[in-house]
Amino acid sequence: MRIEAVDFFYLSMPEVLDIGDGSQDALLVRVQAGPYVGWGECEASPLVSIASFVTPMSHSACKPVRDSVLGQTLDTVADIARICAVVHANSLDLLQMPHTLSGIEIALWDLLGKRFETPVYKLLGAPTAYAKQPYASQLFGDTPHETYTKARRVSADGYRAAKFGWGPYGLGSVAADAEQIAAAREGLGSDGILLVDAGTVWLDDVERALPRLAALRAADTTWLEEPFLSGALSAYAALARQSGSVKMAGGEGCHSEYMAQHMIDYAAIGYVQIDTGRIGGILPAYRVAQYAHARGVTYVNHTFTSALALSASLQPFAGLEHDVICEYPVELKPLALAMTRQRIVPDDDGMVRIPDRPGLGIDIDIDACRRYLVPCEITVRGRVIYATPELSA
Amino acid sequence: MRIEAVDFFYLSMPEVLDIGDGSQDALLVRVQAGPYVGWGECEASPLVSIASFVTPMSHSACKPVRDSVLGQTLDTVADIARICAVVHANSLDLLQMPHTLSGIEIALWDLLGKRFETPVYKLLGAPTAYAKQPYASQLFGDTPHETYTKARRVSADGYRAAKFGWGPYGLGSVAADAEQIAAAREGLGSDGILLVDAGTVWLDDVERALPRLAALRAADTTWLEEPFLSGALSAYAALARQSGSVKMAGGEGCHSEYMAQHMIDYAAIGYVQIDTGRIGGILPAYRVAQYAHARGVTYVNHTFTSALALSASLQPFAGLEHDVICEYPVELKPLALAMTRQRIVPDDDGMVRIPDRPGLGIDIDIDACRRYLVPCEITVRGRVIYATPELSA
Repeated sequence: MRIEAVDFFYLSMPEVLDIGDGSQDALLVRVQAGPYVGWGECEASPLVSIASFVTPMSHSACKPVRDSVLGQTLDTVADIARICAVVHANSLDLLQMPHTLSGIEIALWDLLGKRFETPVYKLLGAPTAYAKQPYASQLFGDTPHETYTKARRVSADGYRAAKFGWGPYGLGSVAADAEQIAAAREGLGSDGILLVDAGTVWLDDVERALPRLAALRAADTTWLEEPFLSGALSAYAALARQSGSVKMAGGEGCHSEYMAQHMIDYAAIGYVQIDTGRIGGILPAYRVAQYAHARGVTYVNHTFTSALALSASLQPFAGLEHDVICEYPVELKPLALAMTRQRIVPDDDGMVRIPDRPGLGIDIDIDACRRYLVPCEITVRGRVIYATPELSA
Repeated sequence: MRIEAVDFFYLSMPEVLDIGDGSQDALLVRVQAGPYVGWGECEASPLVSIASFVTPMSHSACKPVRDSVLGQTLDTVADIARICAVVHANSLDLLQMPHTLSGIEIALWDLLGKRFETPVYKLLGAPTAYAKQPYASQLFGDTPHETYTKARRVSADGYRAAKFGWGPYGLGSVAADAEQIAAAREGLGSDGILLVDAGTVWLDDVERALPRLAALRAADTTWLEEPFLSGALSAYAALARQSGSVKMAGGEGCHSEYMAQHMIDYAAIGYVQIDTGRIGGILPAYRVAQYAHARGVTYVNHTFTSALALSASLQPFAGLEHDVICEYPVELKPLALAMTRQRIVPDDDGMVRIPDRPGLGIDIDIDACRRYLVPCEITVRGRVIYATPELSA
């Protein structure tokens, strides 16, 4: 088969709020090859990723992503790695490229899964997809009491793990942060898995992070996520040396396999969190999962939009039995819920399972997506190089 | 003063060829604050960087670069760092951001330099700008004889240093590569500084690079540049352990200070090559120069377009007396030559000096730029969010 078409659809809520909620827009990718269609999703900034697909060439190592994908042969999973290698070589100097490529790569897996009538994780070589323990991802409340109430609620909803992040945490006093952590633990109950996300609040300042460790340890926190920016490897390692039972978690910003390896090799993290919509898709994420596994680091998915993105994020570590915690967004905007015909919901045992269907196992709700479609047009020298295509199955 | 306008101008040769020549297009940035105008340049893929300036917000950490720059106070150099920190926080998930920011940041320095009637390197704290030894950057010839002829020519032109890269190097046999290296040395003469650029040809495969070291050592090669991709830190370090007198060079792909630090800390490079048009501008490049200097690593500029970009690339290490080698593009396209009223040419002693004028010391040739202007328009939901502005002084 040849890749005959790659189309991008920018979807958005009518109004995008200035809050840390990544489900307010989405960039959906449709790939056609032979009689098959695959779907994928790129993380963040739809217009910029569209531009990097269609932009005129700057030079031989800075070509539009389109040039390296359209017309390529796609028959086996080996073709996916080959096509991605071509994209990387031809767009080496195009910084946005990995985000654009991610959605395409995911769609290629979905398409081949449909062709071979096989779920993606099996194409990756995993005989079984192990159930994952979802954690409810929440913002800290503005007050400890509000955080306590939120923790009670997710616990009542049946979640055995919860993550609290952003909000006031890390910005005020050490004592105020300690009260927040204690409130989260109290609300969650002593058996719950408590995860804390500092949202890069301390940039790379180890001294500001250190005094927070005692309260995290006292509350039996499993991980402290993103105390620092992704690149601050030595800051992560310095904090990890003193964090005891609280492990460092990070990696969502990684847009290459190398960046994830560096966090594993040099940042002393205990959990590596990878977004398939950023790192270049499912295969690089899978390779990071294998690399982490061999080094005693636990892999966790990062995802915050639709069931399609969630399914893609679960495939790379489906076969790792003991990497059991998974991110599971619980406060999605209507767009993210409406995009797909199926949702992935925890089973009666509270665990999340990958759909046992071909490809990613998720069908796009075309009519619903049309309601959120943002029409765009890019013109260069009077010639239209991108106009939102017709959205059809 | 407040930043009243930031305008992007996409310039291009009428035809862009599929060759490794980054001077075929350019993204010029004009910043206005009070009565002053500053100019900067972003490296590579103009349309994508324009899109990241104007794109609609995805969420609170994925805003268009524009939102964090327009209206900001700009009175002192401290404001530049503050504005860039805002951009980083607000556009954390916008991958293209550092390339877009680079041109803006450079323009801010140029503007403040004009305001204070001071060259940028002095604003950075360097009392003197030391002369640099330019190397002529060339592609390998298709044959050793062609490489020999090229080396003879740059030597006759007065260059005491030359870099050969890309072309057939690294793709064929070890013996063929050895002949190329020997030809370059012979053409350059025994006194010339010989630099070799492998153009990431071996990706991260140390075994393919190792057998090339003997010929490089025999020809007294000063550095081997980019044997591997920027992220392949452990491959660099493994090769460096066996390379003896031939030092590793790399870093042009770094789009953050952290990435450059990682190459210094973990890749065992002897030379770190930074492009101010990619890393976020002049200040992060300056900080990398200081970081490298403190660790015995030599800083080198990376640049391949106009005299404006060359001046910006020279400012960060102007004050480092012993970091003397500088990249100096010698095969520029007419666009890159026409863009500016001044050129930076080697003096009678063969050395390159930063213009002793305010800011970057380079005036834009507005009329010439107009001839290369690529009109673009980006429309979202029927509203024009970018249209090429009028190009004036």
